[in-house]
Amino acid sequence: MKTAIITIGDEILIGQIVDTNSAWMSKKLTEAGYEVEEKISIGDNAQQIKDTIKDAFERVDVILTTGGIGPTKDDITKKTLCEYFGTELVFDESVLANINHVISNFTTLNPLTRDQAYVPKDCTVIQNKVGTAPITWFEKGEKVLVSMPGVPYEMKYNMENEIIPRLQTKYNAEAYVSQVLLVGGYTESNLAIHLTDFENNLPEGFGLAYLPSPRLMKLRLFVKGEQRTRELENEVLKLKTLLGDAILAEKDIPLEKILGERLSEKNLTLGTAESCTGGYIAHLITTIPGSSTYFKGSIVSYSNEIKCNVLNVSESNLIEYGAVSESVVLEMAKGAQKTLNVDCVIAVSGIAGPDGGSDDKPVGTVWIATAIKDKIEAKRYQFGKYREANIIGASNTGLLQLLRMIKD
Amino acid sequence: MKTAIITIGDEILIGQIVDTNSAWMSKKLTEAGYEVEEKISIGDNAQQIKDTIKDAFERVDVILTTGGIGPTKDDITKKTLCEYFGTELVFDESVLANINHVISNFTTLNPLTRDQAYVPKDCTVIQNKVGTAPITWFEKGEKVLVSMPGVPYEMKYNMENEIIPRLQTKYNAEAYVSQVLLVGGYTESNLAIHLTDFENNLPEGFGLAYLPSPRLMKLRLFVKGEQRTRELENEVLKLKTLLGDAILAEKDIPLEKILGERLSEKNLTLGTAESCTGGYIAHLITTIPGSSTYFKGSIVSYSNEIKCNVLNVSESNLIEYGAVSESVVLEMAKGAQKTLNVDCVIAVSGIAGPDGGSDDKPVGTVWIATAIKDKIEAKRYQFGKYREANIIGASNTGLLQLLRMIKD
Repeated sequence: MKTAIITIGDEILIGQIVDTNSAWMSKKLTEAGYEVEEKISIGDNAQQIKDTIKDAFERVDVILTTGGIGPTKDDITKKTLCEYFGTELVFDESVLANINHVISNFTTLNPLTRDQAYVPKDCTVIQNKVGTAPITWFEKGEKVLVSMPGVPYEMKYNMENEIIPRLQTKYNAEAYVSQVLLVGGYTESNLAIHLTDFENNLPEGFGLAYLPSPRLMKLRLFVKGEQRTRELENEVLKLKTLLGDAILAEKDIPLEKILGERLSEKNLTLGTAESCTGGYIAHLITTIPGSSTYFKGSIVSYSNEIKCNVLNVSESNLIEYGAVSESVVLEMAKGAQKTLNVDCVIAVSGIAGPDGGSDDKPVGTVWIATAIKDKIEAKRYQFGKYREANIIGASNTGLLQLLRMIKD
Repeated sequence: MKTAIITIGDEILIGQIVDTNSAWMSKKLTEAGYEVEEKISIGDNAQQIKDTIKDAFERVDVILTTGGIGPTKDDITKKTLCEYFGTELVFDESVLANINHVISNFTTLNPLTRDQAYVPKDCTVIQNKVGTAPITWFEKGEKVLVSMPGVPYEMKYNMENEIIPRLQTKYNAEAYVSQVLLVGGYTESNLAIHLTDFENNLPEGFGLAYLPSPRLMKLRLFVKGEQRTRELENEVLKLKTLLGDAILAEKDIPLEKILGERLSEKNLTLGTAESCTGGYIAHLITTIPGSSTYFKGSIVSYSNEIKCNVLNVSESNLIEYGAVSESVVLEMAKGAQKTLNVDCVIAVSGIAGPDGGSDDKPVGTVWIATAIKDKIEAKRYQFGKYREANIIGASNTGLLQLLRMIKD
């Protein structure tokens, strides 16, 4: 069974929003063993919506659409689907009841929200338990189209609880079996050269994909069909021999989750002291549910004053070596260990840019100190010119440096 | 002139990465007055690449592709474009020279990187000054296809410095004129009802788009043609009269940037005390270049111990009212004001979920205190069930609450 994802909305085509929905949907569909053939983004334009659906149905069995079913004038998907499937909008009391339930604890019904209870006559209506726009499921011969809201958490809730389960009862899929390895310390081409022979000798049907991410490579080895799982395991063993310690994790999970698992295993607590990363490391760590069991907190010491007053960094070191220096980042780590009363610390001080660089410390210069109890180490890194990339790169590198230290 | 963006890569279709490139490209193309007709994501599959290009060229004049031109086996775009345009790969010494220049300061040439100097014979090669994969520009009759790397900063640099300027010499465009207003305090449907008459009386060709984001509405009023700028201004004036104080900003900039501008105007310094938002507010604030002039730092007090030891929250209040309470969040704000020595504070304590909820304080319960010098206020909010949405929603609401307080 092949699927296409169609995201509808002018705001996508003018680049006002980043479409994060389709990536999340693709991941869930792939995990469920369904192949995503293509993803298409189009505008709030009736003719384009109908043409795109028609074309896509020539290539796929299932189309999932998001967007355009809100209460406002620019939301035309529901009406357009009625035209495409040759049906009409009818008022549905059960949808109205659901809408009233959903909004009950924060607002009251207004006419536009009430109109969301109009649904296409010839379709299966799926009540949206977390929003006011109903989900509609159309079948035309063997083909299926599901229209859902573009609001991310509404889409996610309904994909997981309603749509994927219903797809699974209708189509049984031959899942891909795959294994992701997170690899540190290689550039993409160096890793590819290191694995040339391995790749050339892969069994029929196997694929190896390289996904570079800041300071990290994701390798994905994959083949279609559960029955090839043992073969996959054999190939993974070969990879492990070839990569050894460079392998940071054997599943596609974020560094902050790997770190959390290691800390929990070893009953270690964690805190951060952040200057140029501005709290982003703490944010990454706290995106993980249950992180409160090992993460106690963070001091974001953006100003030198806070480095001194809260982290006890010595003013003389700040004057002599500057905030972006080995001695200051070491003091930040020790200070955070004491102030936050934690076993492990990631401390970062650097120049994110675009301004603040100098000849000996250009934009992208970052010092990172990591500490585990009385062990402590500091390293200097050179990132690029781009503020956002430097914040993300420095954060990942900080997590990586502590992970390595825990490993040893 | 109509354009299509085609992003190529299995990692997009399996949802391993979020395609942020196409949103950025759409924004730049729209600003330049070019209409993005559609965005398509497909896999590293030669036949699919050729079919998709062929179909898209029936609807658009210019196709921009990203991805699949890296050094590894799964990068097949360059070879496939040769097949599509009926040409062959030839080695280009000038590309090799550029590659050597680009990598000179961090690595040495290896065979795979050297092979990136093979380029299609019949195309215009654009040297990639920030990466090793050359950009290729194909022309077929009146149609243009440009193939560029998927690495975001490489794509961005080349779009701004090479591709858009070249498109502008080839096609003159009638730009859209538009105005974005950020509006607080309305749900999408309440705002739409409030603006019904305004929308119905808009001049021919005008459009009004609603973009909901957590706790905030973006309104975009637009019309094609520079010559209609005065008309647009008149309509914007009407909107301002209708919305008054609900308008937070008259351009599409993030809340954290608006807040930064207000703080700079008033020479106020800022810090945050974050529990459930885990540093995300500090991160948002520090994504803005120059934020160090008003933002001094943050205490991420994830554990109660840190609330007491660093923010001087009284243990008795924690025991009597719990961490998620008015009295504790007020103490957090005052404590941060003192510890960080700042004028303004955003303090947040809540239950992000999925666990930790109770009957009187379900998941999504968040207390936010904002302080400006000796003025302080605390409000209780009820968000949803989803950790990620709660962290983002609480962060935006905190910024919003302080913005409102500054306004008054």
